[in-house]
Formats: sequence, C-alpha cells, structure tokens
Amino acid sequence: MRRDLRIDGARLWTSLMAMAAVGATPGGGVRRLALSDEDRKARDLLVAWLQEAGCHVRVDDLGNIYGRRAGTEADAAPVVVGSHLDTVPTGGRFDGALGVIGGLEVVRALADAGAATRRPVEVVCWTNEEGVRFAPAMLASGVVCGRFTLEEAYAARDADGRAFGEELRRIGYLGQAVHRLREAAAYVELHIEQGPVLERAGAQIGVVEGIEGISWNRVEVAGRTAHAGPTPLEDRQDALVAAARIVLGVRALAERIPGVRATVGHLDVSPNAVNVIPGRVLLTTDLRAREAEALGRAAAGLQAVCAEAARGGVEVRAAEFWRSPPTPFAPGVIGAIARAAEERGCATRRLWAGAGHDAKHMADRWPAGMIFVPSAGGVSHNEREWTSPEDCARGAEVLLGTVWRLAGEA
Amino acid sequence: MRRDLRIDGARLWTSLMAMAAVGATPGGGVRRLALSDEDRKARDLLVAWLQEAGCHVRVDDLGNIYGRRAGTEADAAPVVVGSHLDTVPTGGRFDGALGVIGGLEVVRALADAGAATRRPVEVVCWTNEEGVRFAPAMLASGVVCGRFTLEEAYAARDADGRAFGEELRRIGYLGQAVHRLREAAAYVELHIEQGPVLERAGAQIGVVEGIEGISWNRVEVAGRTAHAGPTPLEDRQDALVAAARIVLGVRALAERIPGVRATVGHLDVSPNAVNVIPGRVLLTTDLRAREAEALGRAAAGLQAVCAEAARGGVEVRAAEFWRSPPTPFAPGVIGAIARAAEERGCATRRLWAGAGHDAKHMADRWPAGMIFVPSAGGVSHNEREWTSPEDCARGAEVLLGTVWRLAGEA
Repeated sequence: MRRDLRIDGARLWTSLMAMAAVGATPGGGVRRLALSDEDRKARDLLVAWLQEAGCHVRVDDLGNIYGRRAGTEADAAPVVVGSHLDTVPTGGRFDGALGVIGGLEVVRALADAGAATRRPVEVVCWTNEEGVRFAPAMLASGVVCGRFTLEEAYAARDADGRAFGEELRRIGYLGQAVHRLREAAAYVELHIEQGPVLERAGAQIGVVEGIEGISWNRVEVAGRTAHAGPTPLEDRQDALVAAARIVLGVRALAERIPGVRATVGHLDVSPNAVNVIPGRVLLTTDLRAREAEALGRAAAGLQAVCAEAARGGVEVRAAEFWRSPPTPFAPGVIGAIARAAEERGCATRRLWAGAGHDAKHMADRWPAGMIFVPSAGGVSHNEREWTSPEDCARGAEVLLGTVWRLAGEA
Repeated sequence: MRRDLRIDGARLWTSLMAMAAVGATPGGGVRRLALSDEDRKARDLLVAWLQEAGCHVRVDDLGNIYGRRAGTEADAAPVVVGSHLDTVPTGGRFDGALGVIGGLEVVRALADAGAATRRPVEVVCWTNEEGVRFAPAMLASGVVCGRFTLEEAYAARDADGRAFGEELRRIGYLGQAVHRLREAAAYVELHIEQGPVLERAGAQIGVVEGIEGISWNRVEVAGRTAHAGPTPLEDRQDALVAAARIVLGVRALAERIPGVRATVGHLDVSPNAVNVIPGRVLLTTDLRAREAEALGRAAAGLQAVCAEAARGGVEVRAAEFWRSPPTPFAPGVIGAIARAAEERGCATRRLWAGAGHDAKHMADRWPAGMIFVPSAGGVSHNEREWTSPEDCARGAEVLLGTVWRLAGEA
C-alpha cells in the first residue's frame, strides 16, 4: 500500500453530485432511463471526465463505454472496474453512479500519484443495467459475457415500442463490436448495498460473496369485464380480486420459505374504470434467493398461488421471462477486497447481494467481486437513496486498494 | 292503444348498428368517450336522424341534445324520453344508445302513424353519463336537474387535464342555457338491464322501481419505494400489498352486508417497475345498495378495511368523492310502464337498477321511470354486451306505449 495513493473524497463527491444533476427529479432523486436523452448527457459527461483523467475511451456495439489507463505490460489482461449510469423511473443518486464515478476516481488517483500498474485498468459504464426500460436487466454486460446475443439486445423494446438498437443509434452511442471487452484479469464493482444489513451491523464495507438468484415472471389474469353496479357477486369474474390474492400469496411465499424475497412491483388493470369490474390484470413477480433450491421452491410456490387464485371462471397464466441462477464470486477477488479493507482499518461484513448487478455476468466469465457501502435506511430505487460522502470515499479507497493489488505495482 | 301505432323493429336495429359503428372497436364493442371525436360523430348522426323524423333540435350549454315533436297543446310540459351516447373505454353497443335510438324510434313511429299527442314528446341525449372521462357520472343531467352547478361541470377534467367546458366547445356542442329542459310531465328511459335478473327469470321487460344508492371513494395508499432485491420483509412498506388487502376487504363487504355490491375498478401502481417495491397505489371503490342504511354500513366498512390495511408504516386515506342516495321512481310512471307492457302481453318483472342513470337526477325533479330489457349473460360495460333485435324492439314498443299514455292522445 503506497501512502501517497489516496482517493480525493471531495472530488469524488463533487463528481457524483454533478452526475446526479443529469436527470434530477424535484424529489431529490434521478430519472435517467437507459438510452434516454438524460442517459446521453450522463454519458457525454463521463466520457469527458475519463479523457481528462488520461484514459483512452472507446464505445462498443452495445453502447458500453470503456476508459482505459495503460499498464506497463501492454498485452496484460486489464483489471476492470465500473457499474452503470441508468436508473429506475424514480431512482436515487448512488445506485450505479457510485461504481462508475468510483472507478473514475481510481484512475484519477493513480494519475495524481504517478503510480504505474503492471496491468491496464479499465473503467466501464454498462448500458441498461436496470432493465426497467428494456428487459432483461444487465442486458449489455450479458451480451459481452455471452449470455445474450446482440440480436436479442437490439430487438428489446420499451413500453412505447422503441427498440434498444434504434435508441442506441439515436443517442449517438452505437460503437463497434471490436471495442467490446475481450479479456479481464478481474472485475470489481463498487455499489451501495441497497439494503439495511451494513448499517444495522455498524459495518463500513461489505465484502460481497456472491449474487442471489432471481426469477421474473409475467402473470396474466383474465376475468370478465362487467358493470360494477348490477352484476351480482356470484356472476363476477373479477380479475383484480384474483390478482389481489396473487399479490398476497406472493408475499406469503417470502414469509414461508427461508431466504426468499418476493415482490409484485408492476400491476396494470384493464379497463381501469371506477364502475367497471376489471376484466384483465397483468402483473410481474420478482423472486430471489441465495440457494438454487429455495429459488426453485419459490417458483413452484408461485405456480400454486396462481392456480389457487384461478377460480370462478377467472384464468391465470404465469410465465417466467427471466432467470439468473445464484452466482458465487471469485475467492481471489473476494480476498483482495477483504485485505484492502483490512489495510484501511475498515469494519467489514461478508454478505450476498440481493439485487442483480453487471458483476453477475462478468463473474460467469472472469474472476469478479463487489464492494458494498452502506445505504441509509436500506433505501434504494428511491429518490431518498443516501450514502454519506465519507462512506462513498471509503468505498472508493477500498476499490483503489483492490485494484492496486490485482493490477500489480509496476 | 292504437293498432297502427307500431315500432319498426328493423329500422330500430339498423339505426342501433349504424350508431355502434361510430367508435367501433376490433372486439365488437364501442369506445366513445364523452366529448371525444367519436362522441361528436355520434351526435352529428343523431341530430340528422331527429331532424329527418321532423323534430325541432336544440342543444343546451351542457351539450345535451333535445329533439322535440310538438303536441297539440303547445304549452303543455313534454314527456321526455332518452338516455346517453357516451360509453366506457371498452363498452358495448346497447348501453345508453338503446334509450336514445329507442326514443328516436318512438317519434318516428308517431310520425309514421300521423298520431298527434296532447303533450310534446322530447328525445334527449345526455352528455357524459358514464363519468369515466369526466367525474362524476351523469354530470350534464345533474346540472339540468340542479344537482351540480354549471361551473362544476365546466371545471371537471379528464386524466390528461382537459376540461369538460373546453372539450364541449372543441367538438362544437356548446349550446345555450336557454335551451335546457325546463319542465317535464314525465321522463322515461329505456335501457338494457346490465345484469342477469331478467334473463334468468325469463322476463322480457323490467319495470324499474328505483335506482340504488352509490358511493364512490378514492383511496390513497402510501408506502415506501425500495429495491425488490435486498430489502428484507420486515423493512418493507409495500403499498401494493396493502392495496391488495383493501381489494379483498372491499369484496368481503359485499359478501357480508346483504344487498350491497362493492368493486375496486381502478388501481394505479407507482412507480410500477418489476424490481421496485411499490411506494404508492391509488384506487377507487364503488359501493351500491337499495337501502340507505346498507350503503352507510358499507361506507363504514370501507373505512374499517382501510384502517386494517394501514400497518407496518403504510398509510391509507379514503375519501368519498361522489354519493348518490337510493331513489325510488314515480308510481304514475311505473304504472304507465307496467300497463303498456301488459297491453303488449310482455312477461314483466319488477326490479331496482344497480347502475346509475340520468333518470336518477330526473327523478329528483320530475316524475321518472325506466324500462329494462334483458342483457345476455348480464354482461355490460363490455364489448360483448348483447340484447337481441326482438328484445330491443319489445322495449321500444313498451316505451312507445308508455309515451302514448303519458303524453295523451290528442
């Protein structure tokens, strides 16, 4: 550990807040949907900062942005750090942005100290991590890591029917396939925890051991539209009543199966009028677990919940549209993170990530790991997301120490 | 009963189907929201037909259309027949339209037979009966009958923020206050039942004794937006889970309190993303009963359901935004309908209307009544709404017979 190699916490915070101004919402959060005009502005800002930090910037055919700081061994596989800049519709200032700006701050710190590394260091900003505008989530890292095809990504459409490929071209971030990440000695992603575990434990740094498995289902409830007034109870095929049973049944899955979290986040009613019995409801379910067996039990439980809700003529169909198995991280990367935190005297805690991250796809192909910092109140995907300047700087310090170990002093 | 005074069933059906073509949906229904371009086209068609039938047409400052056939006593209060031409978003071909076209067919039949009445006969088409685009329902008849002010009506806004008054002007149906209905000897509305009672009883004509009371509430559920992955069960303030409890609680009110119907027809989730715990849900409730006491018990029950759903930090507020008390019809009009049906040998049944109708406001001011014809399967507010040509013609025959009694042979 070189004593002169330090993160500039004030500069990191200033950059984070400048990025948060792009797509800022009146409620203090950020709305920066993937491939929107706000996403374009955020990308422009990042590219300018990476170039100022002396990085060579390239953009691949998924719109992923890479800023490369050369190592002394030109051909060595790089150590890659990063995250994403897109947000959910009413997101916060830290989810994703901290990992990208934290990575930027690492190369800035290396440049400030004139510190050479044996391996190149690359800062990456992945396209469409959230999956809210274009499903599935982590789409672009998934293509780079061989999980999805380029054609699948380009064909993904948002709710208004606009295709990923067209929007990428529209915002001017359609780069070349030759620029994709081809090899990595390691991938390290700094991120807010998005849960209350570190804060409650009084821990400063989370050493992440892996990412929980996720299953997303689309559930279609088909009843019969009828007038809310004259239709007797026994004649009703109320799709919303059945959907309400499913919402509560999904909640009960999480109460019943240890280690499982279950959420209905999206629900649309049709025709959605005060005096019309709903004829159709579309909803999504989000199931998560660290163990594949628990995830399987939850998925089977969902089918049972749907079957139970289908009564009195109401039909229910559930179909999984995305599944990501539980993914343990690389022991070598976990160890480097733990030692970097220890060197800096941080209070650490080992935990699993409940949210999906681009690190999941990277871990399928190369050694990967994640560093968590506390989220106030465990709140995220929310305008009130908050991590203190000190916690952000501490996370970036541990990221810097990890990169220094993995990239090798020259 | 004059033997030569007959409804032309084929002409009635042809007119009904021509009207159903205005705003026709691919599913065989009609989408003709109040004051939309489709509503304008429907109005133009009606005005042309009324003029062809020899009526004097006028439009009032609410956009209500009146077609008047003179009586032999020029100053006598008219017998008014009619209904509405607006529909719910995926409505059927009969709800509303049958009463307007049925009224048109009555004046056509009088003209064909050269039959003079002592009182004038007026066919009315009321604006915005459904209340789906502009709340509350039956807005324009409510102003004419003194229930709402003109200012309230003009200020009503749709979901896109467009005002009733502006839209009325936009479609060219902003008439003059002097043209409003000022007096009525009686009001008779022909309508489909919108329930299964007549069909099940094998009855051809429903003699309606009154309209049930209705209470509409807006319920706001405020939880906390958070990430669906890392947020533990005990930390969740899931607005949709609370809303689901309300939906089932409202359903249970109808199961528990005799004579009450209860529906959640509208429900919006925010931010409505697959991996975000819902922070806010807005829903509406629709409660109905024939007895004021039962309606009051249901309204109190709704408050209890909301209080019970507010737990774990989730807040729930319910506010009534519309109430219409139970309304019995005039014995004289009920009797005229019953005798007209009897003369024609119809199998009749007495019943109450579970849906609101413009006849409710009219009954508050003048003697009013309604004639129901069967709805196949009790289905309405649905594209598959169906009443046979024979049932439509039979209903119009009874309407003609009722008008003939109430308007008086000259």
